[in-house]
Amino acid sequence: MHAAMLRSRVALRVARPAQRAFSSKTIFPNEPTKPSVHTETVPGPASKAASAEIDKIQDPRTHVLVCDYAKSNGNYLVDADGNQLLDVFQQISSIAIGYNVPQLLELGRSDEFITAALNRPALGSFPPKQWAEWLNTGLMTVAPKGLDKLVTTLCGSSANETAFKAAFMAYRQRERGSYDAPFTQEELDSCMVNQKPGTPQLSVLSFKSGFHGRLFGSLSATRSKAIHKVDIPAFDWPVAPFPKVQYPNSQFAKENEAEEARCLQEYEQILIENKKTRPVAAVIIEPILSEGGDRHASNNFYRQLRLIARKHDAFFIVDEVQTGVGATGTFWAHEKWGLQEGDEPDFVTFSKKMQQAGIFHKSETRPNQPYRNYNTWMGDPMRTLQAREIIRVIKEFNLVEHTRKTGEVLTTALTDVFSRHQNLVSNHRGQDVATFQAFDFPSAAVRDAFVGKMRANGVQIGGCGDMSVRLRPTLTFSEPHVNVLVETMDKVLKEI
Amino acid sequence: MHAAMLRSRVALRVARPAQRAFSSKTIFPNEPTKPSVHTETVPGPASKAASAEIDKIQDPRTHVLVCDYAKSNGNYLVDADGNQLLDVFQQISSIAIGYNVPQLLELGRSDEFITAALNRPALGSFPPKQWAEWLNTGLMTVAPKGLDKLVTTLCGSSANETAFKAAFMAYRQRERGSYDAPFTQEELDSCMVNQKPGTPQLSVLSFKSGFHGRLFGSLSATRSKAIHKVDIPAFDWPVAPFPKVQYPNSQFAKENEAEEARCLQEYEQILIENKKTRPVAAVIIEPILSEGGDRHASNNFYRQLRLIARKHDAFFIVDEVQTGVGATGTFWAHEKWGLQEGDEPDFVTFSKKMQQAGIFHKSETRPNQPYRNYNTWMGDPMRTLQAREIIRVIKEFNLVEHTRKTGEVLTTALTDVFSRHQNLVSNHRGQDVATFQAFDFPSAAVRDAFVGKMRANGVQIGGCGDMSVRLRPTLTFSEPHVNVLVETMDKVLKEI
Repeated sequence: MHAAMLRSRVALRVARPAQRAFSSKTIFPNEPTKPSVHTETVPGPASKAASAEIDKIQDPRTHVLVCDYAKSNGNYLVDADGNQLLDVFQQISSIAIGYNVPQLLELGRSDEFITAALNRPALGSFPPKQWAEWLNTGLMTVAPKGLDKLVTTLCGSSANETAFKAAFMAYRQRERGSYDAPFTQEELDSCMVNQKPGTPQLSVLSFKSGFHGRLFGSLSATRSKAIHKVDIPAFDWPVAPFPKVQYPNSQFAKENEAEEARCLQEYEQILIENKKTRPVAAVIIEPILSEGGDRHASNNFYRQLRLIARKHDAFFIVDEVQTGVGATGTFWAHEKWGLQEGDEPDFVTFSKKMQQAGIFHKSETRPNQPYRNYNTWMGDPMRTLQAREIIRVIKEFNLVEHTRKTGEVLTTALTDVFSRHQNLVSNHRGQDVATFQAFDFPSAAVRDAFVGKMRANGVQIGGCGDMSVRLRPTLTFSEPHVNVLVETMDKVLKEI
Repeated sequence: MHAAMLRSRVALRVARPAQRAFSSKTIFPNEPTKPSVHTETVPGPASKAASAEIDKIQDPRTHVLVCDYAKSNGNYLVDADGNQLLDVFQQISSIAIGYNVPQLLELGRSDEFITAALNRPALGSFPPKQWAEWLNTGLMTVAPKGLDKLVTTLCGSSANETAFKAAFMAYRQRERGSYDAPFTQEELDSCMVNQKPGTPQLSVLSFKSGFHGRLFGSLSATRSKAIHKVDIPAFDWPVAPFPKVQYPNSQFAKENEAEEARCLQEYEQILIENKKTRPVAAVIIEPILSEGGDRHASNNFYRQLRLIARKHDAFFIVDEVQTGVGATGTFWAHEKWGLQEGDEPDFVTFSKKMQQAGIFHKSETRPNQPYRNYNTWMGDPMRTLQAREIIRVIKEFNLVEHTRKTGEVLTTALTDVFSRHQNLVSNHRGQDVATFQAFDFPSAAVRDAFVGKMRANGVQIGGCGDMSVRLRPTLTFSEPHVNVLVETMDKVLKEI
């Protein structure tokens, strides 16, 4: 079904704000204006044949589409069959600006980038001479307030585990009485056989439905879905409840406040009780629980989490792997919590849209000795250069502000389309976090049917949680894309 | 000290084989012929100033040199001061061919590479349409015998943890009675709070002095140094002894055989005893324990490890992160063990020189359901393209065979130089694994002094274990480099 046909049949009911200077065409002059699907199914035969070839080597059961990245452009993903889809999922929220950003391709052709890409160093021991400059003109320009130290890593899971390790080490030094206090011989010996006192019985507290990665430490903190965790050994770390907020908040303000208070109380109780058994060295939380179903809580709830963590000697880690880099209308989602100076998180972790993963932290959590939080690559200079260019483009075109404005357009458009499908869609949320919006279906089956039909109609959209859909478009996602999205949704919702 | 001066003063005592067709100049026509050091210390002032700048953001205490990668060439690393060092450490054993390989730079300029580098997909869900071809013409051409499945990851630590996860899942399915046996509701519920039965009390057995990474699962298996492990929570997993081999083996054949028999017996005992408490789902070992001090054992020892693991239902993981990709004279170091058909390892993990990390495995360890061993990126197409080109160059120039031959030259040369410094150097080993050789000093202090003086004289060389030095040159390392190395060593050993 061509979107052109679709467009002609669905009346636009969306109120339009005055024309703004930025349009995705500014960056992507050749970006398509509408989806184009010419196979009977999506994935079509070429995509399916490619998956069958991959099956001989790798697991293809998680494939959605096999893609033609050279032909993809801006907010439009082209698949192996030549279908052209508006992409509001963007590689699980990992593309900041769009496909084939001209500025990034130009970076890719530069000698600086090619040298960095094909001569990957052991950054912790042999950094390139431009390293400080690359960080100071890139990642450090977006360092969260109060956090002026950085460890670069290769992915979000290892970013979180790097923060865990730093927190454990700092926690133990505090217990020893000073940053410089030496280890005992017993500690040095016992840690080699994974026994206390050298291997401490400490924990990381996370929240129900939270997602923090898939490696053994991060997976121990992940609480999203059983299929992520079953059969994998995990640390006996505590989990605290996350508020079950009811929507719209205006209608359930009182209930939601009571629910948050209940969760805060239980959270503090867990921190207290674990002190006797497996003290909590760090608390980790996402500003919006994304994989877990786009679950939100109030700014006050998050402020309290931070203060209560400190009260009980736990470091506070904000996992911005999915929420970071502008998509929520501020560069970091936790900015809107309104934390007081001095109350900033101890760690902010990032990856995905930034391409270079890592943690921002404070000098007090730099390990007291070298080689304690070290590895071979410790990040990747080419991804750091890519991050710098992504940040530069975001700033040049005011893409965070643009996304905030697009969020308003999106809210109006979704509110309108959902008003006609109240039997199917509920819990529209995220109206205060730009385009980072989500909504629920009555069941996983209906949600999956919706996602499949959206794809067949030229929109790649993604699920989360048990029966939710999350919007994760780029920062160049604009009003024309909103129109394509809601027209397609309107059509699909009528068909379900 | 200029190497030219050095060369004029040190007589060459190395026997030279007949000239061979391959020389590193074939690939690197402009490669320097000797080191060049013009600062009083190495690192010099520019390197130190760059480290001081980085210190404001990142931990510089592990810095060795700050480098100028654009100017580095082949086996020669150029630092920020313009010093030109023969590099036999190669970014902790992570550079296969050399710096600025023309074939890799050409790849870097191709549209295919630039598209892949700047449009990183979520490979498990949206692979590029060329993906099967890239694997079939690259990584799969070097798949270890018997292992025709592949999972790509971002680093060696996550490769090992990916193997651990696959082993745990397969182990549990075997316990359930079949590949397809369903989970119980109790398992699905309990794993969400990290409790059994859903979170199993299973373990990975590793060996004393083994190194398998720095994330929480891989670090639990790492047994190299206390500074890597102290203060970090770890799983209560067992550690088995690794033979303390005495050198030369010809002299201590009987003692070494007895030592290996002792270790095998204890290893089997641990496997048996853990069945009652925390059954061993997987055994992991390096073919040469590298970070732990270049510790070797016989081919028979490794064959027995593999057979005993299977006897006790444990999967067998060979960690070739450091030993893989030709440097030991075979593409994979475990090839020389002489395992019978059907006795191949269950998993072979790789990273470093391959640039694209991952695991080779068998179809029986593909998880029985999708999304069980999944993450956002699941490897990196640009690194896969880089790996393909590295493999192509290795094959075109027969670099594995070349390295085997260079190993013979190196053995002769080192034997000669060590014969004159028997008071300082002992336990020369690895003569049967090409250039992957090592030797010991009387103490860490003397070893560190040697490494520092080598650097000051234009050779970047690296330590391992407590008082060892490991050679980790590229696969283009050739006789002229051997000569520079041993001349410099001879000079430095005289000075110590």
